[in-house]
Amino acid sequence: MTIKEYTATDENKIIAEKWFSHLRDSICKEFEQIENSNSNKNSFKINKWNRDGGGGGKMSIMKGDVFEKVGVNISTVHGKFTESFRSKIPGAEEDGNFWASGISVVSHPKNPFVPAAHMNTRLIVTSKTWFGGGGDITPMKPSPKMSNLFHENLKKTCNRHDEKYYDKFKAWADEYFFIKHRNETRGDGGIFFDYINTGSWDKDFNFVKDIGHNFLTSYSKIIKKTQNLPWNSKDREDQLVKRGRYAEFNLLYDRGTLFGLKTGGNTDAILMSLPPEVKWS
Amino acid sequence: MTIKEYTATDENKIIAEKWFSHLRDSICKEFEQIENSNSNKNSFKINKWNRDGGGGGKMSIMKGDVFEKVGVNISTVHGKFTESFRSKIPGAEEDGNFWASGISVVSHPKNPFVPAAHMNTRLIVTSKTWFGGGGDITPMKPSPKMSNLFHENLKKTCNRHDEKYYDKFKAWADEYFFIKHRNETRGDGGIFFDYINTGSWDKDFNFVKDIGHNFLTSYSKIIKKTQNLPWNSKDREDQLVKRGRYAEFNLLYDRGTLFGLKTGGNTDAILMSLPPEVKWS
Repeated sequence: MTIKEYTATDENKIIAEKWFSHLRDSICKEFEQIENSNSNKNSFKINKWNRDGGGGGKMSIMKGDVFEKVGVNISTVHGKFTESFRSKIPGAEEDGNFWASGISVVSHPKNPFVPAAHMNTRLIVTSKTWFGGGGDITPMKPSPKMSNLFHENLKKTCNRHDEKYYDKFKAWADEYFFIKHRNETRGDGGIFFDYINTGSWDKDFNFVKDIGHNFLTSYSKIIKKTQNLPWNSKDREDQLVKRGRYAEFNLLYDRGTLFGLKTGGNTDAILMSLPPEVKWS
Repeated sequence: MTIKEYTATDENKIIAEKWFSHLRDSICKEFEQIENSNSNKNSFKINKWNRDGGGGGKMSIMKGDVFEKVGVNISTVHGKFTESFRSKIPGAEEDGNFWASGISVVSHPKNPFVPAAHMNTRLIVTSKTWFGGGGDITPMKPSPKMSNLFHENLKKTCNRHDEKYYDKFKAWADEYFFIKHRNETRGDGGIFFDYINTGSWDKDFNFVKDIGHNFLTSYSKIIKKTQNLPWNSKDREDQLVKRGRYAEFNLLYDRGTLFGLKTGGNTDAILMSLPPEVKWS
């Protein structure tokens, strides 16, 4: 960390929190339109939760015909990390104070030919300030065209901000979204980034906003291209087994899940990411 | 650990390994009889696996109408613990050498009124020697009668060997089979024990044999009493959601699962315990 670093002001925090909330609204609106384009009338149900230590969040979940289950969580929390966590979090070593705000989206479509997808972005403030996040796609059936579309959009988005970002963050995702005990990736990857503080708040915040916005555009395109593909019971079976791997990853390796559950986070919001139905052979 | 301790001889090891194999045969035979009492013709399929570091195991799985999925694993493995594990395993501090043999049974019945159940027993030899294991029952729908039957049989079995065992090992199971992030137990408990070396090989080995044998008798009785109870789609739904909790426990907390996956164990054998189908709401 260098002197270029900024510290988020109270105004920065408010603006970031508002952005995550605004992005949540855009995502839910767009997903509801997709869900109901065939005259369904499904909608997101919102559950609010409060965190004992300070702050809370809102969990939006929709269960429908296009989206078997899709969740969009936003949360803004603050407090003090316990002693044992302080050494693991940059800038928390001294007093353990933290503030964090973010959004997390996980989609499990019903049609096995529509890939599952995940995106999250967050702003963390301890005595240091940084952005983190990522997005990745998990086809249930091999779907190189859709993966390429997803990656190309990510690359374009990254390149608008820094030509080094895509390669760097894609490599990070490849390492992160790996199911070690299966020796296989969770899906077709995407990007993963953390500890982003280039010295320019505007540059970093614009990048994070662009990632969120691009995810919505790009994933909506993928859904529309695949949602009407015919599928049979074998495809469903493949999907349920692949989802089992997804559940294994989230419960065994996902940092956010393990961190959240260990620090007394909201269990329902954290495990919102788990697929609605899975099979293990 | 005191001077009363025994060290397993090569003969002890052979006898223990043979017992686990014999118990596997008895369990599979009895479960196949139950499965096929209504003129089904399902049977256990056996998969053999070898461990890179030494030894291996046999995984027996049956998928049927009474047992949606039941697995019986036996394994005998040996090798050296990596440096990072040595300090965590009694008697492995010096050279890290270990030998272990055991059996593990996990049953996920189809009828939501037949409880899921688990039993395992093992002999571990480092520079120390001890037995470990346990058994527990997880009703998918509240089933106090079946839980009482299971516990009473466990208590009788324990009392034949040591009047302190049942209370002690039941308390250990209550602590162990607890899903912290849900603030709920995995099921209705049972017993859990480890580091058993009373100074008498015969006493300890007889206890472990009795636990295995009693599990088969007691759980078979429970299946026969419940397998023909009528159930509906709501019961199935409850079962699938309860099984989600079971998967959460195994992937987030189960020592054997985490230890096995981290030490390069056989993934299929370790994750045999996961339910065949689960739902998350």
